[in-house]
Amino acid sequence: MFPKLRRITSLLSRLPGVGEKTAQRYLLHMLAGDPEVARALGEELRSLHEHVTSCERCGNLAELVPPEVRAICTICLDSRRDARLVCVVARVQDLLAIERATSMRGTYFVLGKLLSPLEGTGPDQIPTARLLARVRAEGITEVILATPPSVDGEATALLLRQELQQLEVRVTRIASGVPHGGDLEFADPITMGRALEGRNAM
Amino acid sequence: MFPKLRRITSLLSRLPGVGEKTAQRYLLHMLAGDPEVARALGEELRSLHEHVTSCERCGNLAELVPPEVRAICTICLDSRRDARLVCVVARVQDLLAIERATSMRGTYFVLGKLLSPLEGTGPDQIPTARLLARVRAEGITEVILATPPSVDGEATALLLRQELQQLEVRVTRIASGVPHGGDLEFADPITMGRALEGRNAM
Repeated sequence: MFPKLRRITSLLSRLPGVGEKTAQRYLLHMLAGDPEVARALGEELRSLHEHVTSCERCGNLAELVPPEVRAICTICLDSRRDARLVCVVARVQDLLAIERATSMRGTYFVLGKLLSPLEGTGPDQIPTARLLARVRAEGITEVILATPPSVDGEATALLLRQELQQLEVRVTRIASGVPHGGDLEFADPITMGRALEGRNAM
Repeated sequence: MFPKLRRITSLLSRLPGVGEKTAQRYLLHMLAGDPEVARALGEELRSLHEHVTSCERCGNLAELVPPEVRAICTICLDSRRDARLVCVVARVQDLLAIERATSMRGTYFVLGKLLSPLEGTGPDQIPTARLLARVRAEGITEVILATPPSVDGEATALLLRQELQQLEVRVTRIASGVPHGGDLEFADPITMGRALEGRNAM
């Protein structure tokens, strides 16, 4: 293989879940396809980090359009959103997943990381102070803790609930249980336990 | 999502086996990672088709380095290769797979397609004349037919063998049988039949 193709293969292999064989498959597919696709993708990726940054308010992705200097995401700019309701998530991916459900009409707060003793992430690395400041400054009435229902996610939710108790704000946690379309037979014991504990009157 | 991110996601979804979710995962991974990686990948892809083309002689990938105008691949340029031996493959991917085995010391001929009644590829679309001309012009003594052991691959191999009979050249076909490390118990009947038919004295 030529230096250029080797360089592309090696760069593509840095994508999550992409090994050398998949990278080569992508490359050969682009070579066999419309040259315009590779050119356009190249152009877009080249300037990716110059144009896309984090929203200063919530941590969501924000496009930086010159001469704009402040990066505010489209959700924060949307006046129809309920600014009194904030949904705390671990990652931008989680925010996008919640947006797909379309039932969240509030704004977001992306933590960027979760408490993780194994990875050495302690309480001081969670941006609790920034969240509290925003709750105070914006008169937020409800904080939905939407960290994942994993050990790290639950620990982070507990930490945030504790810190938020000093403010007059309603703190809620997303429900955990058997997923829609899921089979009870294949639910793991923890999920099943949560589904039972979180049962609602009907 | 912003126009730029939507454009990148849509371009990435054109890669084989990549859907919208995977494309988004790739994009977010690049956004979270070293900006230099996205920039370098962008640069390389932008000029991919300008620098990479098909080898004029064998159809392998060839890098076009200015002021060079003829595109000849590194295998064809390698004088240690046996130019009397040519290996016929369907796709560049197959050539790369054979190269990984390192036991082919000859050159290649990439067909680009296989006979396929279902896809409407007839004998006139297979570059048989070009292969015959090369065998004649270069005094090739052996043609290894390395098309895949599939219906289309076998049909193409048969067609080529027939056409090559008019020349004084040895025509061979790669072996088909139980793969290395494969379990006889799980071999399909056709593979098992081929392994038996193709048995060698030991």
